[in-house]
Amino acid sequence: MPPLDQPLSVLKGVPTTITAMSELVPEPRQKPVVPMKPMGINTSLLGYIGIDTIIEQMRKKTMKTGFDFNIMVVGQSGLGKSTLVNTLFKSQVSRKSSGWNREEKIPKTVEIKAIGHVIEEGGVKMKLTVIDTPGFGDQINNENCWEPIEKYINEQYEKFLKEEVNIARKKRIPDTRVHCCLYFISPTGHSLRPLDLEFMKHLSKVVNIIPVIAKADTMTLEEKTEFKQRVRKELEVNGIEFYPQKEFDEDLEDKTENDKIRQESMPFAVVGSDKEYQVNGKRVLGRKTPWGIIEVENLNHCEFALLRDFVIRTHLQDLKEVTHNIHYETYRAKRLNDNGGLPPTPATPDSATGLSLQHVAPPRWE
Amino acid sequence: MPPLDQPLSVLKGVPTTITAMSELVPEPRQKPVVPMKPMGINTSLLGYIGIDTIIEQMRKKTMKTGFDFNIMVVGQSGLGKSTLVNTLFKSQVSRKSSGWNREEKIPKTVEIKAIGHVIEEGGVKMKLTVIDTPGFGDQINNENCWEPIEKYINEQYEKFLKEEVNIARKKRIPDTRVHCCLYFISPTGHSLRPLDLEFMKHLSKVVNIIPVIAKADTMTLEEKTEFKQRVRKELEVNGIEFYPQKEFDEDLEDKTENDKIRQESMPFAVVGSDKEYQVNGKRVLGRKTPWGIIEVENLNHCEFALLRDFVIRTHLQDLKEVTHNIHYETYRAKRLNDNGGLPPTPATPDSATGLSLQHVAPPRWE
Repeated sequence: MPPLDQPLSVLKGVPTTITAMSELVPEPRQKPVVPMKPMGINTSLLGYIGIDTIIEQMRKKTMKTGFDFNIMVVGQSGLGKSTLVNTLFKSQVSRKSSGWNREEKIPKTVEIKAIGHVIEEGGVKMKLTVIDTPGFGDQINNENCWEPIEKYINEQYEKFLKEEVNIARKKRIPDTRVHCCLYFISPTGHSLRPLDLEFMKHLSKVVNIIPVIAKADTMTLEEKTEFKQRVRKELEVNGIEFYPQKEFDEDLEDKTENDKIRQESMPFAVVGSDKEYQVNGKRVLGRKTPWGIIEVENLNHCEFALLRDFVIRTHLQDLKEVTHNIHYETYRAKRLNDNGGLPPTPATPDSATGLSLQHVAPPRWE
Repeated sequence: MPPLDQPLSVLKGVPTTITAMSELVPEPRQKPVVPMKPMGINTSLLGYIGIDTIIEQMRKKTMKTGFDFNIMVVGQSGLGKSTLVNTLFKSQVSRKSSGWNREEKIPKTVEIKAIGHVIEEGGVKMKLTVIDTPGFGDQINNENCWEPIEKYINEQYEKFLKEEVNIARKKRIPDTRVHCCLYFISPTGHSLRPLDLEFMKHLSKVVNIIPVIAKADTMTLEEKTEFKQRVRKELEVNGIEFYPQKEFDEDLEDKTENDKIRQESMPFAVVGSDKEYQVNGKRVLGRKTPWGIIEVENLNHCEFALLRDFVIRTHLQDLKEVTHNIHYETYRAKRLNDNGGLPPTPATPDSATGLSLQHVAPPRWE
């Protein structure tokens, strides 16, 4: 035991690592830096600085501000798009554009409908926008029916860009960009349709596409396994990259996790339901048939829970970041290049790209 | 108990609040939305969506990427600037530009020296840059000696802006902007010096200034209380706003917390030390005098712990955000306005503003 009141050390043994040091400006009268002692473990309470409190500080900020998440659903009518989104968010966030009222007519062209909600859970507010695309794939001639969808997606990038280049810009730019596009594949058991390939080919470069096999309860286990393999193969043959794209894996951990999703889970074979049933004393979301209840969150029955975990619980932040860092940046770079390196004029709608923003009203969050 | 296998409800009683709903596109065939039932408490496990996992997802991302924090120290030589920064970060992050070697000469003009470190704690990496300003206030004539400091701060904004307007820009723009400037006031017990007022008047609009009374162990409790009051009064009379600025409080919680800091804590009267002593069986950082040991982290002795908590544990993220959202935005807006609304040319150093970036080498993080 050292005598009291004597200097013990100069900052040694603190549970903190200093791993690098560099000088930004050459210093003529340079002195050797006092080297840090190697990291000690619990040597002293004095050692704690509080760097990791940044996480808690960020949490507090997020709790106050909330966050935006915009999800789009695309696929022919009758594939259960609305029901699936309602199942994902456990609430009536999407109206059934057709089917809800059986007398409603299928629109004659592709429409884009966005509905906003604020959902709060554990004190965290999500400003959710569900973008539906009724009429897609429902026409006699479905040529170019991906175009209004691509246009909508690009318009959101354009809006964001115009806000970003404004001289006096908002502290938080309202984010209407589509972070995730669920593409619904018909559970034919055969192969992808030309329209599926056409859509994904055009859109996979502008938005995060997650393909799902809709109404997977119509297939047996073997059919499902085979169909999933075939779809993956067809996408690969056609050079279609879906989310999470290989090239954007940031490290080995990402790669390992995402490879599993790319090679096994995709496309998620799902069943949705907004009805609850009692099974073994528990209330579950499911579909009742004469031969049993399909429990949507039971992984033995379908892959809904996998999709939900993927979209909401593990990759939500990444979906937002890839949208911002990759898709939006790609749009922005092209837009600036086309404009001779200059940003678009912030105030007026732009005519150079043929984009018109008038028909989309700004979101109203009440 | 309801009979088995019967639909119980349509998504009722989930522990999630939907607080708002709005439509972005007017829908001609609008149907009334099924209203959500009021939030239930633990009514069903089915209810959990996972929105709050965004916090964990953000934590994981921050753990991977780390974050930048750049702190500047300004004040006359001999006020213990280096020691205080070393005490804040519990390591030798700042060399003593003078005093370390007593034979070193004070520079003839104000120099700007930046040293970078990576400090890791609890798995979170902070890329810390300490920017020292030797020579400040040490000349016979100290006129305009705030100018090189303002120039350095603006150069970092300019660098960031040029990266931001680049067509092909980096995914994460390296952040060299000064997030926090500790201004060291001499513990005279009298009043602020003209140079103190001059510096803070010019710089408080471009950077987050936190005034501290250096070497507070030279004052008695009464002297300290009186001096703090006088300094606050003088700053107020001279219209100098230090961080956290009143106008940037975002809500009542911010206001309550920050008012306390503005009206009681500021300017923090601090003592720094990088020597450890044994006091009551514990090792503490302190200064040994014949009349006792000054424990720097003991709130009965000085306000170092208050400053440390404020800068690192509660306001670090906010310092970064105010720098980005307020000071950088102010610089950017002025810069674009001066340039006729156009961004600066990204590739070449800009001559229009008289800024030269050549003398600051890019940070090297090894």
